[in-house]
Amino acid sequence: MTEMVRAAVQTGPRQIEMREFPRPTVGPDDGLLRVEANGICGSDVEIYRGHMGMNPNPFIPGHEPMGIIEEIGERAAERWGVQVGDRVALEVIVPCRSCEDCLMGRYQACRFRKYGHGVTGIDVDPSLWGGFAEYLYLSPNTVMHKISRDLPVEVAAMYNPLGAGVRWAVDLGEAGLGDTVVVLGAGQRGIAAVIAAKSVGASNVIITGLERDAHKLALAREFGADHTVVVDGDGGTDIVDAVAEITGGRMADLALDLTPMAAGPVTDALKSVRHGGRVVLAGLKGHRDIPVATDLIVNRALTVKGAFGVDAAANKKAIELLESGRFPFERLHTHTFGLDDVGLAIETLAGETDDQSALHVSVHPAA
Amino acid sequence: MTEMVRAAVQTGPRQIEMREFPRPTVGPDDGLLRVEANGICGSDVEIYRGHMGMNPNPFIPGHEPMGIIEEIGERAAERWGVQVGDRVALEVIVPCRSCEDCLMGRYQACRFRKYGHGVTGIDVDPSLWGGFAEYLYLSPNTVMHKISRDLPVEVAAMYNPLGAGVRWAVDLGEAGLGDTVVVLGAGQRGIAAVIAAKSVGASNVIITGLERDAHKLALAREFGADHTVVVDGDGGTDIVDAVAEITGGRMADLALDLTPMAAGPVTDALKSVRHGGRVVLAGLKGHRDIPVATDLIVNRALTVKGAFGVDAAANKKAIELLESGRFPFERLHTHTFGLDDVGLAIETLAGETDDQSALHVSVHPAA
Amino acid sequence: MTEMVRAAVQTGPRQIEMREFPRPTVGPDDGLLRVEANGICGSDVEIYRGHMGMNPNPFIPGHEPMGIIEEIGERAAERWGVQVGDRVALEVIVPCRSCEDCLMGRYQACRFRKYGHGVTGIDVDPSLWGGFAEYLYLSPNTVMHKISRDLPVEVAAMYNPLGAGVRWAVDLGEAGLGDTVVVLGAGQRGIAAVIAAKSVGASNVIITGLERDAHKLALAREFGADHTVVVDGDGGTDIVDAVAEITGGRMADLALDLTPMAAGPVTDALKSVRHGGRVVLAGLKGHRDIPVATDLIVNRALTVKGAFGVDAAANKKAIELLESGRFPFERLHTHTFGLDDVGLAIETLAGETDDQSALHVSVHPAA
Amino acid sequence: MTEMVRAAVQTGPRQIEMREFPRPTVGPDDGLLRVEANGICGSDVEIYRGHMGMNPNPFIPGHEPMGIIEEIGERAAERWGVQVGDRVALEVIVPCRSCEDCLMGRYQACRFRKYGHGVTGIDVDPSLWGGFAEYLYLSPNTVMHKISRDLPVEVAAMYNPLGAGVRWAVDLGEAGLGDTVVVLGAGQRGIAAVIAAKSVGASNVIITGLERDAHKLALAREFGADHTVVVDGDGGTDIVDAVAEITGGRMADLALDLTPMAAGPVTDALKSVRHGGRVVLAGLKGHRDIPVATDLIVNRALTVKGAFGVDAAANKKAIELLESGRFPFERLHTHTFGLDDVGLAIETLAGETDDQSALHVSVHPAA
Repeated sequence: MTEMVRAAVQTGPRQIEMREFPRPTVGPDDGLLRVEANGICGSDVEIYRGHMGMNPNPFIPGHEPMGIIEEIGERAAERWGVQVGDRVALEVIVPCRSCEDCLMGRYQACRFRKYGHGVTGIDVDPSLWGGFAEYLYLSPNTVMHKISRDLPVEVAAMYNPLGAGVRWAVDLGEAGLGDTVVVLGAGQRGIAAVIAAKSVGASNVIITGLERDAHKLALAREFGADHTVVVDGDGGTDIVDAVAEITGGRMADLALDLTPMAAGPVTDALKSVRHGGRVVLAGLKGHRDIPVATDLIVNRALTVKGAFGVDAAANKKAIELLESGRFPFERLHTHTFGLDDVGLAIETLAGETDDQSALHVSVHPAA
Repeated sequence: MTEMVRAAVQTGPRQIEMREFPRPTVGPDDGLLRVEANGICGSDVEIYRGHMGMNPNPFIPGHEPMGIIEEIGERAAERWGVQVGDRVALEVIVPCRSCEDCLMGRYQACRFRKYGHGVTGIDVDPSLWGGFAEYLYLSPNTVMHKISRDLPVEVAAMYNPLGAGVRWAVDLGEAGLGDTVVVLGAGQRGIAAVIAAKSVGASNVIITGLERDAHKLALAREFGADHTVVVDGDGGTDIVDAVAEITGGRMADLALDLTPMAAGPVTDALKSVRHGGRVVLAGLKGHRDIPVATDLIVNRALTVKGAFGVDAAANKKAIELLESGRFPFERLHTHTFGLDDVGLAIETLAGETDDQSALHVSVHPAA
Repeated sequence: MTEMVRAAVQTGPRQIEMREFPRPTVGPDDGLLRVEANGICGSDVEIYRGHMGMNPNPFIPGHEPMGIIEEIGERAAERWGVQVGDRVALEVIVPCRSCEDCLMGRYQACRFRKYGHGVTGIDVDPSLWGGFAEYLYLSPNTVMHKISRDLPVEVAAMYNPLGAGVRWAVDLGEAGLGDTVVVLGAGQRGIAAVIAAKSVGASNVIITGLERDAHKLALAREFGADHTVVVDGDGGTDIVDAVAEITGGRMADLALDLTPMAAGPVTDALKSVRHGGRVVLAGLKGHRDIPVATDLIVNRALTVKGAFGVDAAANKKAIELLESGRFPFERLHTHTFGLDDVGLAIETLAGETDDQSALHVSVHPAA
Repeated sequence: MTEMVRAAVQTGPRQIEMREFPRPTVGPDDGLLRVEANGICGSDVEIYRGHMGMNPNPFIPGHEPMGIIEEIGERAAERWGVQVGDRVALEVIVPCRSCEDCLMGRYQACRFRKYGHGVTGIDVDPSLWGGFAEYLYLSPNTVMHKISRDLPVEVAAMYNPLGAGVRWAVDLGEAGLGDTVVVLGAGQRGIAAVIAAKSVGASNVIITGLERDAHKLALAREFGADHTVVVDGDGGTDIVDAVAEITGGRMADLALDLTPMAAGPVTDALKSVRHGGRVVLAGLKGHRDIPVATDLIVNRALTVKGAFGVDAAANKKAIELLESGRFPFERLHTHTFGLDDVGLAIETLAGETDDQSALHVSVHPAA
């Protein structure tokens, strides 16, 4: 049995160092996860850069951990319905499970939560809260979902972005049979939204990207996107014009803004949908006020929803979709890194390196 | 039988003149309404000032007409379920009733509608489309609702603002038992939103106004508002702070922005609601881009809905509420004008005269 | 131009005779359809047998007509958005389009409707209301949907059963991504429910049939059914046991009873779903009281919905699905008959002939 | 400090005896409630008679306990947001709080729950699970709601029946502004349903009862019922006829069957509502198959929902309603008993004694 556990610790903006921590002792209500992989998303980039109200204490990042149950307490095994050797995927939020919000299924709004995988400091026992580590501590309130060991680890590690696609396009956006859906932004979550929308029968899915996203847009087509629109550069197309042309002026039923920081896509989304249409906002804009044509919301009787995180229902549907093999998910994966290269992994996803091809990037501690 | 019908015709911004039109002949599918009253709302002011893409042709304004069926064709009587002598309230939109939107109950989105009460020009036969007239033409596709003749005419004329309160606070905002509801703006529709929210059991209704709205806020309390907040002047209170204090930090379930032109209330509404809360936008901002803290929508998982018009379901509920006598509706009415004073009526609602007390103002052609 | 129109007229139970009617004159608000095909469903069988409160007057049956616009009035063309040569599919109900139910999108509940395609008598001008005729009269309130001329006529004629599958499984049953769905009954609507459920991502669809339905169950698998269960005969399986086994005791999210006359499937459906599950009832039981374990509805917190007809939203989605080519729809079609063989067509669907293979049967007047 | 706790223990059908148990020791995660009152409902009667799959071991009944926090662990106090001296109302279900159903807010469906207040045996430490006792053990997963100490104890003890009224009429039945609602059964939950429906603006509430319920129907009128209908005896009225007459043939929007054991009210409820109407079933029928006119569900496009228990959202709204003082709740209370008279209390509610006036009956251990 390993006595010490290696982990990547973030100590400041762009400062990550390897440390070792004692392997936690497991009691009846908790457990230990052997991390197989931890996917990287845009908020990892923001955290890495120090933009997201980062924990003042050193902490182990990595909030999309999945792996194998290494040890588990008796009561924990019963509550979670898992045993040693099962593969599970974790949620970032560790809710209190007791307040009224938790009781009514709104645990994402829990105001009493103290821990989060990938955000809690190493000063909080037993330190191993994040996914960029060989082992991760399963606290009594951790939320986990079983996922088949038959999936390649890279595919299993996509549960979180695909869960976001499901929650944003389907659960919040109510994409459905025959719908026209516009996805603004061609990152991994954009393509996940395409997958989710097509999986519930949307007939006409349009995704936008930049000139440099050509290969991502091509991949989106492999996953079922019906139209791709390049919105910048000399040949760039106005997305609202494009939607008008594609739909014969009827406009879309649903538009999702998944672009980080850009202001224009919010109003583009509003303009892309029909009277009574839906808009889902998931792209954060750096706590700025964004100019928005709010009269459109009124005059077109629109519904705009904010997409905060992924809940258990969406994660469960995403995992079933991954297990179904209905899409060539492995095509989404572009980069695998080891535990010593967490910084490089994040920079690669961020497009800070020469390699601009990153879509799904994950860290595999045993690699 | 009157041979000619007197009507107020708007020929340009702030230009209204009295004209006479031949009384229309009624066939089997249409009818004629003797107008008892026509309420005035903020969009009448905008139309009067020429700001709302006014009809290039002269037209008879007045889009909240109610009155008595004077004549009715045989097929029309059967379809509408009314007869001569019945009192009815009209909707502004005259939908095509045939397109898919109409078929599915979304007639407010009908793209094929040609007429509207109070917006169609006098060049379209038989000219008498608006409510500021002795008689109004009931076209085959006019939408109408029966309303009791037992109500005072001033109260019956409130169907439209009360319908807006019902649609915005209850149908769109989903105000319900035990909810905390914030209403931004103390005009007739603000108070109507208070009435609607209280009528479905909201336990904590907060309404904002300006210093000069003191009597309106006092009236809001008579209709059940639990808290009133003055947001301007030396003693002005920040509404977000007020909501935080009133709710012990829990914030509201629902906030409605009913303020015309002001930018701040949109973000105030977003900040006033809890994680997972709802915001309804009804205040038009002059086709401007408004600075909005969209990250709040994302991070608090908010739902924002645009409030476009009033539909049949809301009008029906409003009429039942008026007929129930559950509230002292007559207290809302402040001014009655005759047909010769349409301009003055609109200016009074707009606060352009010395009299700043206007809430519900209506024109009674027979007065 | 044809002067007379041939049509099959039902004059009594199992009595159908060919007659000729003058071709109607088309005015500005109506039109004429050249019938390409008219599908047959279980209620045609009941009407044929005289069980469904049949019209006391002779009438032209056929309530799933589709074909080509032969003539159309100017106003009708604009309202419906169609022109001569377009292919359209009709709904049976011809609503009043004026009452509150119609206004709010509930035209299936219209209490003022006077006509219906396939149910109105020949005594009502211009007689040609039903689909078993060379031409059909398009009345001003007829509800129609455009459908591509590129589809084989047999496939286009499936809009109605597929619309039922969409409405019952998806719109009412809320089948969704990852759901387990049980379909009781392997007729054309059972298979249509399978198609609809799979098209929105249901992961586990179970359909039941009788021993004699072996080929229908095999076909259901071609359309995506994950499990087929034979419920009668020596090797018959209890469907509730089967669902328990397939789901590991979790039971289904949704069950649909599409069986005509049989009492048992109602309680089977209730027993097949989980706590909080949904049940859709579409099978009519001959106006009898059926023994039902209502305590299950209470103790499992079930939602049970009645499936009455198909509305415009479902028809539209079904037509898009047909046009998408996502499924091998032509495999559903089993029999085509000419206008002189309407009785035989109905008897074939009913299984009254030696041929027990009927699934989708249609009458093609030009065949 | 009391060393021993007195409690009423049910040892078999109609067998209740007083016993003493050691006062539990409270740790960081649990607590102790000083029971002020415990209301009695119809299922207490069934449990008392031994009809409801009674616990094979002796147990302390009483599943509507409310009282004062006597002791509380540090972590429990934080999680529940309560402290010593607070008044709280408990839910019967003690869910696992960990399974997917719990996570998604469906804890009423939790399949892993082990305890329940009023149903767990005295063989499970620390025995004091039920409300008919001086003190009750607050287990770590107990669900509780704060309730004002300003309310009379009899009124505070009504949280459960009023919560049922809210959940059944409002949350499940979607009673709303202007609705016509039929309540079948005039017990405490029937009147609670009247209160709930009126509190959200239902304009027309009709409640049925038997001849012997005359005083209960009179009380229902005090709480806002618009019509009362006696359905038995010589002057008994058919409820379906009554609804037709009251609504001018339009029928009700919602009907609730709250009658225990009776078969007829299920179909009465189906017949009382309009096309597209809602029916809520809460009356258990003794695990029998009940004859039901299921064709009505299909042909009228009805939605039927089973009402299982009361959840946190409904309890919270009920408590706010009690605290609001909007209704004369104290008028509902008819009988108070001490701990030594639990059997008599239950028999009184059941109408087994000469006194037929019981509506709200509660046991007050300190009385």
